[in-house]
This record gives sequence, structure tokens and C-alpha cells, in this order.
Amino acid sequence: MLRSFAFVAVAALVMPSFAGSVETAVQLRDKALTDTTAWAIVETLTSEVGPRPIGSAAYNRSRDWAVAKLTAFGFTNVHVETFVKPAWSRGAESAEIVGAHSQKLAVLGLGYSVPTPKAGIEAPVVVFGSYREMLAQPPGSLKGKIVLVNQPMTRTQDVSGYAAAVVARNGDAEAAMRGAVAYLVRSIATGTGRAPHTGATWGPGPHIPCAALGVPDADLVASLARHETVRIRLKLQSSLDQKAVAFDVSGEIKGRERPDEVIVIGGHLDSWDPGTGALDDGAGIAITTAAAKLIGDLPAHPRRTIRVVWWGSEENGGSSEAYAKAHAGEKFVIAGEADLGGDHAYMVAVPQGLPGLDEVMAPLKTIVSRAMPRNGGADIHGLEEAGVPVLVVLNDASRYFDYHHSADDTLAVVDSDGLKQNVAVWAGLVYLIAESDIDFRKVPAAK
Amino acid sequence: MLRSFAFVAVAALVMPSFAGSVETAVQLRDKALTDTTAWAIVETLTSEVGPRPIGSAAYNRSRDWAVAKLTAFGFTNVHVETFVKPAWSRGAESAEIVGAHSQKLAVLGLGYSVPTPKAGIEAPVVVFGSYREMLAQPPGSLKGKIVLVNQPMTRTQDVSGYAAAVVARNGDAEAAMRGAVAYLVRSIATGTGRAPHTGATWGPGPHIPCAALGVPDADLVASLARHETVRIRLKLQSSLDQKAVAFDVSGEIKGRERPDEVIVIGGHLDSWDPGTGALDDGAGIAITTAAAKLIGDLPAHPRRTIRVVWWGSEENGGSSEAYAKAHAGEKFVIAGEADLGGDHAYMVAVPQGLPGLDEVMAPLKTIVSRAMPRNGGADIHGLEEAGVPVLVVLNDASRYFDYHHSADDTLAVVDSDGLKQNVAVWAGLVYLIAESDIDFRKVPAAK
Repeated sequence: MLRSFAFVAVAALVMPSFAGSVETAVQLRDKALTDTTAWAIVETLTSEVGPRPIGSAAYNRSRDWAVAKLTAFGFTNVHVETFVKPAWSRGAESAEIVGAHSQKLAVLGLGYSVPTPKAGIEAPVVVFGSYREMLAQPPGSLKGKIVLVNQPMTRTQDVSGYAAAVVARNGDAEAAMRGAVAYLVRSIATGTGRAPHTGATWGPGPHIPCAALGVPDADLVASLARHETVRIRLKLQSSLDQKAVAFDVSGEIKGRERPDEVIVIGGHLDSWDPGTGALDDGAGIAITTAAAKLIGDLPAHPRRTIRVVWWGSEENGGSSEAYAKAHAGEKFVIAGEADLGGDHAYMVAVPQGLPGLDEVMAPLKTIVSRAMPRNGGADIHGLEEAGVPVLVVLNDASRYFDYHHSADDTLAVVDSDGLKQNVAVWAGLVYLIAESDIDFRKVPAAK
Repeated sequence: MLRSFAFVAVAALVMPSFAGSVETAVQLRDKALTDTTAWAIVETLTSEVGPRPIGSAAYNRSRDWAVAKLTAFGFTNVHVETFVKPAWSRGAESAEIVGAHSQKLAVLGLGYSVPTPKAGIEAPVVVFGSYREMLAQPPGSLKGKIVLVNQPMTRTQDVSGYAAAVVARNGDAEAAMRGAVAYLVRSIATGTGRAPHTGATWGPGPHIPCAALGVPDADLVASLARHETVRIRLKLQSSLDQKAVAFDVSGEIKGRERPDEVIVIGGHLDSWDPGTGALDDGAGIAITTAAAKLIGDLPAHPRRTIRVVWWGSEENGGSSEAYAKAHAGEKFVIAGEADLGGDHAYMVAVPQGLPGLDEVMAPLKTIVSRAMPRNGGADIHGLEEAGVPVLVVLNDASRYFDYHHSADDTLAVVDSDGLKQNVAVWAGLVYLIAESDIDFRKVPAAK
């Protein structure tokens, strides 16, 4: 999960009623609340495939696994679309405090970090309590230092805490321009777990080796550094394949009346390497796929086509551009991505009021927002840029960043009831859209 | 923390009143609630020393650190007592599922496990949902297998959940006798963290390599094993020094009237290696030391001597025997050990009713038990066996086993308010004992 969501308030529209659609959406919703398909997807994905960063053997294995799953679930037009992306692979990594108070630190290189020399880098550490504090340092002032930005992240229901903190993960260039030889960041995470949280770095350079310390480790270094000079030895090995083959896997519930009108929903199949990618984004593909499957299992398909896409390159830059380009000519009704875990979905937004949506959502404790959805997800950003309307489902992210991009992102932290509630939200929402003929492009201007 | 506590109900005694003592105990209690000494001990111990298993460089370093700390706090007769204990040191370790669904598993060898051959052991896994289920297997039935006992632990306020589960950690001999080549156990832990939880194995043998899997990893293997044969490759390297030098460090608040009557309290200085030993048992030494320091800072010392001991070999068999032997001739009033973290102390027990104790404890939400304390702690077991009365302070252990013996046992999981409440309990309790002349050996027989 990379992006935050913003809304532009629009007036709610009064739409004609589709009593039959709403009744079916309610039935789908209630069926979803006892459906275990989403859980089964996350369980088998995490155990049969495991962590699947692009370029890994497991990633390549996940392709056949995905085709088999989508086919078994009854989707049609199941196929793989490939594109080229650079793949970064983690090598041996270590960090330790050296000297009188030596001890090992929990460290995880940030994705696309340049490696250290094999013998590592050893240097004194300068700790900043905030990223802004580091930015305030003059050029050259950090010459020969390892920088640690130890900025805590705020726990929030939405992604605002993450959005505010994650900027520090891309600070290697700013540190380098001030003379630093390596850049360490407190994991962009809530919680107390020692497992570091990785993530890609996207700065323009100049690049220096950069890594995340576990939250307790960053505090430990900061605590020592208040009284003494702390020296750290950092070793980060990695390799980069500029032309790895990435892929999206998709399948469809073909529309019975308007098959060329496509609702595209999904999550991303790739994951970071330390955990098993259960929440990020096993949950996302599980929720959207289970919802679509429930619709596909109806006696009659809805009027429009529902396409489920398991995007294959979210964590290293997004499949977004490749997907938008490959599908430029298509008639997309709307696009939606689930990439914020599987906890309670507390709000949905579509570009217009959707008849019956409040009725379907209310028992799920899901608010229907009257604001204009934006930034629907990293993998549909290309579609959105090309003018495709997006829907947004917001999950309670309070727990999400305790686990995100860390070893602790496993099936153990997935809430099975939360998954079901999400499937109910997506099934009801997507069905109503698929059975309607609303053109979401025709949105009234914001007042 | 190894032992559980049992109580034998005894009649409460009506004792003479010590109004002055109670008043001072109340003052100590209230001062403790704003005192940060305990936190500072855990913070500096975890950052300046770090993980400190017996035999490690950090363990040896902790000796001078302990002497310096106790001296700085104003204790007298600060000294080190050495004894010999076997030290087990972890080497390279790994576990992975091999075959079509290959992935790495989070593993941590159990203390005193025999090593695997350098190339490791690769074998099919047999999963049991409970330890009892494995014990029900006939001899030879597990020939050539790696056993995984995947028995969940129940979260409880007291240590009963742990006591019921931990038996499975010593199962290597039982597995070996049934033909197994290696023994894996689901971490004896609550929570969802992936970090495995280690601990010593104490079985009589025959021994096979044994290790703990992370809770999610044990479930992952069990999930796969329901549908296919899972093969695991396990590598566990370690070394054993049969004659490592262990030590206890102690200091005293000398009694003003009865200096030869000694109240011995403390925790253990050694720790397991994956975390920084913050809860286990940084908290224990911090709580008891901060409490004793508050008493030592009074204008006048209490009548009896308070001795704080930082035992140095709890995790590998206890300093208990060595300490009891070395101090056989002393006049111990009572002994108490803090080794269950730093969360709310909800109950205290001393062998007799102690005048004023209820009054001092009530505002802390700490119940004074009228039952007979037993099993005061692993390091005072030898004293207890030799007839020394014990006191017991019970912590809410609901969270404790989320972190115990794992990488997640760091300062981040220590609750600073909880520490203060514990210091208040210990300061009030120990002061009342030290100012009294009660002989806790003279306890009425249980009714």
C-alpha cells in the first residue's frame, strides 16, 4: 500500500431505484458474511507460495498458482499479461553497534537500496528525531556519518499516520547530499515488534545504502546516542535485475448484457519478502476475488463484466502504467483496488450516489461517503490518470502498520471476520455497479 | 520465568500495629509511583549491555555494569559471587520447507539442543495438534520423521497457560524414543508475532536437535501438511562450554537494628539471546532494585537488612543451588524474586498477615492473598527448599508470553506505569517486612 486517499465533496444524486438489484445485493452481502473463500485464498497463498517479491522463485511460481485458482473459481478469460520491471533481490544484511556497548541490531534493507561494500560501512551515527530535523542540516554537515532518522509514526484509523511518516523512507538522497555514508530510518510502523519494516525507496539520488531498523532498535540507538558516540557497522548486500519479467493475472465474470463495459477490481499478487504477504496484499486479492466469485455464482451474471486483476508489481513501482497502456482502448466503467488489509471496511465511495448502496452497507457499519473518490490505489493509478472513475473502500488501518512490510505480516494477523465483512462490502458494491447502467464519468462538478 | 505459583490457604493472623511503619510504607508507595529509576535500569541494561546469555561477551560485560549500577544507587557490600555452569551458545540456524511449496521458516534452536550435522537434516514432517497426541504414538512410529508439536498456548492472567503449554518444549526425548530425527515445537507463546520463542530444554535424553518455530510458521506447516507431505530442512549449529563462569551480583541496605537478619530480593541478570531481555528479566531486577533504593534513600534504614541479588544463571538452570549453598549459614527473614515482567502486580502473598499491608496495597489495586506462598522463583528455589520463607508478587502475565524469550522482548514492550506500580508494591511490602520483627517461619498450620 502506497497511496493515501483524498476526497472532493460532491452533491449526492437522487437516482432511479433498482429494487431487484438491491435485493440481490443484500443476499450477496449476507452470504458473504459466512463465506470462507477469502480466508482460503490467503491461507493457501501464504503457505503454498509464501513471500513473493518480483524476481523470486516464489513470484514466478505464483503465476501458475494464480491461473489455477482463478480458473477453479469459475472465472473466464483467465490469462497472464507480462511486462518488464527491475527486480531488486535482498542479499546478506546485518547491522551492529560496535565498541563498548556492542550488540546486533534488527535491520532490513530498503528495496532498491544500493549495497554497501562487502566488508560493510562502519561510521559514527547521527540521530534525528524527525525527518524535518535532518533536512534542516546544511550541506556537508553529515560528512562521514551514518544518519538515523528516528521519527515515530502515529497510529490512525486512516492512512494519514503512514502518509506523514513514509516520506522519511525516501531520505537517502537528502542524507547523501549532506555528506552521509549510509541512511537508516526507524521502521515506518506502529506497534512494538522488533521485526523491521521494509519498503521501496524512490528518491532520485545520489544514493547511499539505506535500511530500516526495528522500532525498538532505533530507540535503543537513540537512547545510547544521547550519552555517547555510537558507531554502527552496516552490511547490505543485494542484486538488481533491470529486466525482470513481471505479470498481472486476471479473470472475468462476463456481463450478460453489456459485456464490453468492464468493472476492474483486484489487489496485488507480489509482496515484500520478510513476511508471507498475508495482509499486503493477500487480503486484497482474496477480498475482491471472493466478492466477484459470489457474484459469478449467481444464477445470472450481472449486466456488465466484472474483471478481477491480480496485479504483479505493486511493491516495486506498480503495474499501473503497464496495465493502463495495455488496456487503453477498453470501456472501463470503474476501477477499484483493495490494498489496505482486511480489517473493518468503514467507508465506501463511488463517484455518484448509487441507488440502494446505503441500504446494503448500513448493516455492515460501512458509511457511504458523498465525497468524490480519488487515488483508488497504486495499481489503478494509470487507469485513473487516463480518466477511468474509481471507487474506494477504506479499511480501518489502525493495526495494519504494526505488520506491513515486516516478518509479522502473516496469516496470524488476518482477522477472518474482518475479511468476511470486506467481501460483503465489495460484493454488494460491485454487484450494484455491475447491474446498473450508470456512467460514473458524468459526475456533477464540486459545489 | 520458569515456575508457577501455588498457594496453600492459611488463616489470616491479627498482628500488632506499626503505625509509623505503615505511614512510611505509604510514603514510599506514593513516591514510587513517580519514580523513574526502574525504567532507567531497563533502558540502560538493554542498550548498554543488550542480550546476555551466559557465556556471551555481553554477559561477562554485565558483571562490571551491575557492580557500577548497584554502587551508584548507594548499596553497600556490592560484590560478585561466581560459580560454574554449562553455557550453550547458538550458532547458525535455519529451517525451510523444501519441494514445490518451498519457503523459509522462522526458527530458533532451543537452549541446550544438540546440533544437527552441518549439512542439516531433511525429512518429512509429522504434525501433532497437541503434545499428548504425540505421546500417544507407539515406539518407532515416528522413525525418520521430523516431529512438529503445534499445540497452542492459552492466554491467561496468571502463568497457568504457560505451565500447561511448556511441557511440550521438553519433548525431544519423547520424540526421539519414537524414532524422530528432530523435534520442532510451536513457540510456547501467545500473540501473533513471527519471532520464535526459545527456552531451555531439560529432558533426560535421548537427545535430537530441537527448535521452536514461530507461531505463524507452525500453523503454516500444519496447514500444508493437511493436504501434502511437507519436507523440512533444518540446520542448527551450537556449541557448549561445560565450565563457564556464572555469577550473581548483590548489594545491601544494611539494617539499623538487626543487620544480620536478611531480606533477600531480586531478579535475574542473564537473559536469552534473541531480544534484549527487557521484560525477562530486566524488569525484575529494575523493580526490586528501585524499590530497595527508595528504602535506602530514607533518612533512616529499616531495622533489618535488605539484600538485592541480580542472579546470573536463571535461564540455564538457575543460580538457585549455588546461592543457597554459598549462603547456608545466614539468617534469612524471607526471599522474593521478580521474574514475570512489569505489568500490573495484582496480588501479593507473605506467609503471615503483615500489619498494614492491606492499607498500603489497596490503592495499587493489589490484593493481599491470605494463602501460603510457594515457589517464589527459580533463583530462590534453593533457599525455599532450605526452609527460607518466600514472598510472592503476581504480575498480570496476559501480555508477557507474547514477548518472552523472543526478539520482541525489548524496551518497547515495557509499560512504564506498570513498572512504577510494581516498584510501589515491592517498596511498601519489603519496607514493612524490614521494619517488623516477624518470624515468617512461625506460620500456623493450614486448616
